[in-house]
Amino acid sequence: MSPSSRSASPSQPRTLAHPERDEISLEAVLHALSDPVRLQVVRYLAGLAEGEGAACSAIELVVSKSTGTHHFRVLREAGLISQVYRGTAKLNALRRADLDALFPGLLDAVLGADAARRERDVS
Amino acid sequence: MSPSSRSASPSQPRTLAHPERDEISLEAVLHALSDPVRLQVVRYLAGLAEGEGAACSAIELVVSKSTGTHHFRVLREAGLISQVYRGTAKLNALRRADLDALFPGLLDAVLGADAARRERDVS
Repeated sequence: MSPSSRSASPSQPRTLAHPERDEISLEAVLHALSDPVRLQVVRYLAGLAEGEGAACSAIELVVSKSTGTHHFRVLREAGLISQVYRGTAKLNALRRADLDALFPGLLDAVLGADAARRERDVS
Repeated sequence: MSPSSRSASPSQPRTLAHPERDEISLEAVLHALSDPVRLQVVRYLAGLAEGEGAACSAIELVVSKSTGTHHFRVLREAGLISQVYRGTAKLNALRRADLDALFPGLLDAVLGADAARRERDVS
Protein backbone atom coordinates (compact mmCIF):
# COMPACT_ATOMS: atom_id res chain seq x y z
CA MET A 1 0.00 0.00 0.00
CA SER A 2 1.47 3.32 -0.95
CA PRO A 3 1.49 6.04 1.67
CA SER A 4 -0.95 8.27 -0.17
CA SER A 5 -3.58 5.54 -0.36
CA ARG A 6 -3.85 5.28 3.42
CA SER A 7 -7.32 6.40 4.29
CA ALA A 8 -7.95 8.70 7.19
CA SER A 9 -9.29 6.98 10.30
CA PRO A 10 -10.32 8.29 13.71
CA SER A 11 -6.97 7.27 15.16
CA GLN A 12 -5.09 8.79 12.21
CA PRO A 13 -7.07 11.87 11.32
CA ARG A 14 -4.38 13.78 9.44
CA THR A 15 -2.68 12.46 6.35
CA LEU A 16 -0.01 14.08 4.21
CA ALA A 17 0.10 14.08 0.41
CA HIS A 18 2.56 11.69 -1.22
CA PRO A 19 3.17 11.11 -4.92
CA GLU A 20 2.15 7.67 -6.15
CA ARG A 21 5.02 5.56 -7.43
CA ASP A 22 4.36 6.44 -11.07
CA GLU A 23 4.26 10.14 -10.22
CA ILE A 24 7.79 10.16 -8.81
CA SER A 25 10.12 12.12 -11.10
CA LEU A 26 13.81 11.39 -11.55
CA GLU A 27 14.63 15.10 -11.60
CA ALA A 28 12.71 15.73 -8.35
CA VAL A 29 14.49 12.80 -6.66
CA LEU A 30 17.91 14.06 -7.79
CA HIS A 31 17.06 17.57 -6.64
CA ALA A 32 15.86 16.29 -3.26
CA LEU A 33 19.13 14.40 -2.84
CA SER A 34 21.28 17.40 -3.84
CA ASP A 35 21.20 19.01 -0.40
CA PRO A 36 23.50 17.89 2.45
CA VAL A 37 20.77 18.08 5.12
CA ARG A 38 18.32 16.05 3.03
CA LEU A 39 21.07 13.58 2.19
CA GLN A 40 21.69 13.21 5.93
CA VAL A 41 18.01 12.36 6.48
CA VAL A 42 18.06 9.80 3.67
CA ARG A 43 21.30 8.28 5.00
CA TYR A 44 19.77 8.00 8.48
CA LEU A 45 16.54 6.41 7.24
CA ALA A 46 18.45 4.06 4.93
CA GLY A 47 20.29 2.78 8.00
CA LEU A 48 17.08 1.64 9.69
CA ALA A 49 15.71 -1.86 9.36
CA GLU A 50 13.31 -2.52 6.46
CA GLY A 51 9.94 -0.95 7.13
CA GLU A 52 11.15 0.99 10.14
CA GLY A 53 10.71 4.74 10.48
CA ALA A 54 12.00 7.53 12.66
CA ALA A 55 10.57 10.71 14.13
CA CYS A 56 12.03 13.94 12.74
CA SER A 57 13.46 14.67 16.18
CA ALA A 58 15.45 11.42 16.15
CA ILE A 59 17.68 12.77 13.38
CA GLU A 60 20.10 15.40 14.65
CA LEU A 61 20.12 18.10 11.99
CA VAL A 62 22.20 21.26 12.25
CA VAL A 63 19.34 23.47 11.05
CA SER A 64 16.38 25.12 12.74
CA LYS A 65 13.21 23.12 13.32
CA SER A 66 11.33 24.98 10.57
CA THR A 67 14.16 24.48 8.08
CA GLY A 68 14.24 20.80 9.02
CA THR A 69 10.49 20.55 8.47
CA HIS A 70 10.96 22.11 5.03
CA HIS A 71 13.61 19.55 4.10
CA PHE A 72 11.40 16.64 5.23
CA ARG A 73 8.60 18.08 3.12
CA VAL A 74 10.83 18.33 0.01
CA LEU A 75 11.82 14.68 0.53
CA ARG A 76 8.17 13.60 0.92
CA GLU A 77 6.92 15.58 -2.07
CA ALA A 78 9.73 14.17 -4.23
CA GLY A 79 8.70 10.65 -3.25
CA LEU A 80 11.83 9.77 -1.29
CA ILE A 81 10.19 9.36 2.09
CA SER A 82 6.80 8.66 3.56
CA GLN A 83 5.54 10.67 6.49
CA VAL A 84 2.67 9.53 8.68
CA TYR A 85 1.40 11.09 11.85
CA ARG A 86 1.90 9.19 15.07
CA GLY A 87 0.15 11.39 17.59
CA THR A 88 1.59 14.86 17.03
CA ALA A 89 4.91 13.60 15.65
CA LYS A 90 5.61 12.51 12.10
CA LEU A 91 7.14 9.13 11.47
CA ASN A 92 9.47 9.14 8.47
CA ALA A 93 10.48 6.17 6.38
CA LEU A 94 12.46 5.75 3.18
CA ARG A 95 10.35 4.64 0.18
CA ARG A 96 13.08 2.21 -0.83
CA ALA A 97 10.83 -0.27 -2.66
CA ASP A 98 9.37 2.49 -4.84
CA LEU A 99 12.77 4.05 -5.51
CA ASP A 100 14.51 0.77 -6.28
CA ALA A 101 11.70 -0.22 -8.64
CA LEU A 102 11.77 3.08 -10.50
CA PHE A 103 15.48 3.87 -10.44
CA PRO A 104 17.43 0.63 -9.93
CA GLY A 105 20.79 1.23 -8.32
CA LEU A 106 20.34 4.98 -7.94
CA LEU A 107 19.84 5.13 -4.18
CA ASP A 108 22.66 2.66 -3.54
CA ALA A 109 25.00 4.62 -5.82
CA VAL A 110 24.20 7.89 -4.04
CA LEU A 111 24.51 6.36 -0.56
CA GLY A 112 27.70 4.57 -1.59
CA ALA A 113 29.23 7.78 -2.98
CA ASP A 114 28.18 9.63 0.16
CA ALA A 115 29.74 6.97 2.42
CA ALA A 116 32.98 6.90 0.39
CA ARG A 117 33.22 10.67 0.53
CA ARG A 118 32.66 10.71 4.30
CA GLU A 119 35.38 8.08 4.67
CA ARG A 120 37.77 10.22 2.61
CA ASP A 121 36.93 13.29 4.73
CA VAL A 122 37.71 11.43 7.97
CA SER A 123 41.03 9.99 6.81
CA MET B 1 45.38 15.29 -17.60
CA SER B 2 42.41 17.02 -16.10
CA PRO B 3 40.80 19.81 -18.13
CA SER B 4 41.75 22.54 -15.67
CA SER B 5 45.41 21.67 -15.84
CA ARG B 6 45.63 22.44 -19.55
CA SER B 7 47.90 25.42 -19.85
CA ALA B 8 47.06 28.26 -22.15
CA SER B 9 48.90 28.20 -25.44
CA PRO B 10 48.86 30.50 -28.45
CA SER B 11 46.56 28.12 -30.30
CA GLN B 12 44.28 27.72 -27.27
CA PRO B 13 44.26 31.13 -25.68
CA ARG B 14 41.05 30.85 -23.68
CA THR B 15 40.50 28.24 -21.05
CA LEU B 16 37.50 27.69 -18.80
CA ALA B 17 37.64 26.84 -15.10
CA HIS B 18 36.94 23.24 -14.14
CA PRO B 19 36.96 21.66 -10.69
CA GLU B 20 39.73 19.12 -10.16
CA ARG B 21 38.50 15.59 -9.51
CA ASP B 22 38.81 15.91 -5.73
CA GLU B 23 36.88 19.19 -5.78
CA ILE B 24 33.79 17.62 -7.36
CA SER B 25 30.93 17.51 -4.87
CA LEU B 26 28.23 14.84 -4.81
CA GLU B 27 25.56 17.44 -4.04
CA ALA B 28 26.64 19.65 -6.96
CA VAL B 29 26.60 16.66 -9.32
CA LEU B 30 23.11 15.62 -8.18
CA HIS B 31 21.90 19.19 -8.51
CA ALA B 32 23.38 19.49 -12.00
CA LEU B 33 21.60 16.28 -13.01
CA SER B 34 18.26 17.40 -11.54
CA ASP B 35 17.25 19.47 -14.57
CA PRO B 36 15.73 17.93 -17.72
CA VAL B 37 17.78 20.08 -20.12
CA ARG B 38 21.04 19.29 -18.35
CA LEU B 39 20.09 15.64 -18.21
CA GLN B 40 19.55 15.77 -21.98
CA VAL B 41 23.08 17.15 -22.47
CA VAL B 42 24.57 14.43 -20.27
CA ARG B 43 22.56 11.75 -22.08
CA TYR B 44 23.81 13.04 -25.43
CA LEU B 45 27.45 13.20 -24.36
CA ALA B 46 27.22 9.77 -22.71
CA GLY B 47 26.16 8.39 -26.10
CA LEU B 48 29.38 9.51 -27.80
CA ALA B 49 32.42 7.30 -28.11
CA GLU B 50 34.97 7.42 -25.26
CA GLY B 51 36.93 10.66 -25.39
CA GLU B 52 34.70 12.25 -28.00
CA GLY B 53 33.07 15.62 -27.52
CA ALA B 54 30.35 17.68 -29.13
CA ALA B 55 29.77 21.34 -29.81
CA CYS B 56 26.91 22.93 -27.87
CA SER B 57 25.08 23.49 -31.17
CA ALA B 58 25.14 19.75 -31.94
CA ILE B 59 22.70 19.10 -29.09
CA GLU B 60 19.19 20.22 -29.94
CA LEU B 61 17.90 21.85 -26.79
CA VAL B 62 14.43 23.40 -26.49
CA VAL B 63 15.75 26.48 -24.70
CA SER B 64 17.27 29.78 -25.83
CA LYS B 65 20.98 29.94 -26.61
CA SER B 66 21.74 31.90 -23.42
CA THR B 67 19.77 29.46 -21.26
CA GLY B 68 21.60 26.61 -22.96
CA THR B 69 24.94 28.29 -22.24
CA HIS B 70 23.91 28.60 -18.59
CA HIS B 71 23.10 24.87 -18.38
CA PHE B 72 26.46 23.91 -19.94
CA ARG B 73 28.16 26.14 -17.42
CA VAL B 74 26.34 24.52 -14.46
CA LEU B 75 27.44 21.12 -15.78
CA ARG B 76 31.05 22.26 -16.17
CA GLU B 77 31.23 23.92 -12.76
CA ALA B 78 29.74 20.82 -11.11
CA GLY B 79 32.43 18.69 -12.75
CA LEU B 80 30.14 16.70 -15.03
CA ILE B 81 31.55 17.94 -18.32
CA SER B 82 34.70 19.48 -19.70
CA GLN B 83 34.49 22.42 -22.08
CA VAL B 84 37.39 23.46 -24.27
CA TYR B 85 37.44 26.08 -26.97
CA ARG B 86 37.84 24.93 -30.54
CA GLY B 87 37.99 28.19 -32.41
CA THR B 88 34.96 30.14 -31.24
CA ALA B 89 32.92 27.05 -30.36
CA LYS B 90 33.10 25.05 -27.15
CA LEU B 91 33.68 21.34 -27.33
CA ASN B 92 31.88 19.48 -24.55
CA ALA B 93 32.73 16.06 -23.20
CA LEU B 94 31.48 14.00 -20.28
CA ARG B 95 34.04 13.58 -17.46
CA ARG B 96 33.09 9.93 -17.13
CA ALA B 97 36.42 8.72 -15.72
CA ASP B 98 36.30 11.31 -12.95
CA LEU B 99 32.65 10.63 -12.17
CA ASP B 100 32.99 6.84 -12.21
CA ALA B 101 36.03 7.04 -9.94
CA LEU B 102 34.32 9.33 -7.45
CA PHE B 103 30.77 8.01 -7.56
CA PRO B 104 30.83 4.43 -8.85
CA GLY B 105 27.56 3.46 -10.49
CA LEU B 106 25.92 6.85 -10.08
CA LEU B 107 26.05 8.02 -13.67
CA ASP B 108 24.95 4.64 -14.98
CA ALA B 109 22.06 4.51 -12.49
CA VAL B 110 20.88 7.99 -13.50
CA LEU B 111 21.22 7.29 -17.23
CA GLY B 112 19.54 3.90 -16.79
CA ALA B 113 16.64 5.44 -14.86
CA ASP B 114 16.35 8.16 -17.49
CA ALA B 115 16.31 5.61 -20.33
CA ALA B 116 13.73 3.41 -18.56
CA ARG B 117 11.51 6.39 -17.94
CA ARG B 118 11.73 7.51 -21.56
CA GLU B 119 10.82 3.99 -22.63
CA ARG B 120 7.78 4.03 -20.31
CA ASP B 121 6.72 7.43 -21.69
CA VAL B 122 6.83 6.16 -25.27
CA SER B 123 4.90 2.96 -24.63
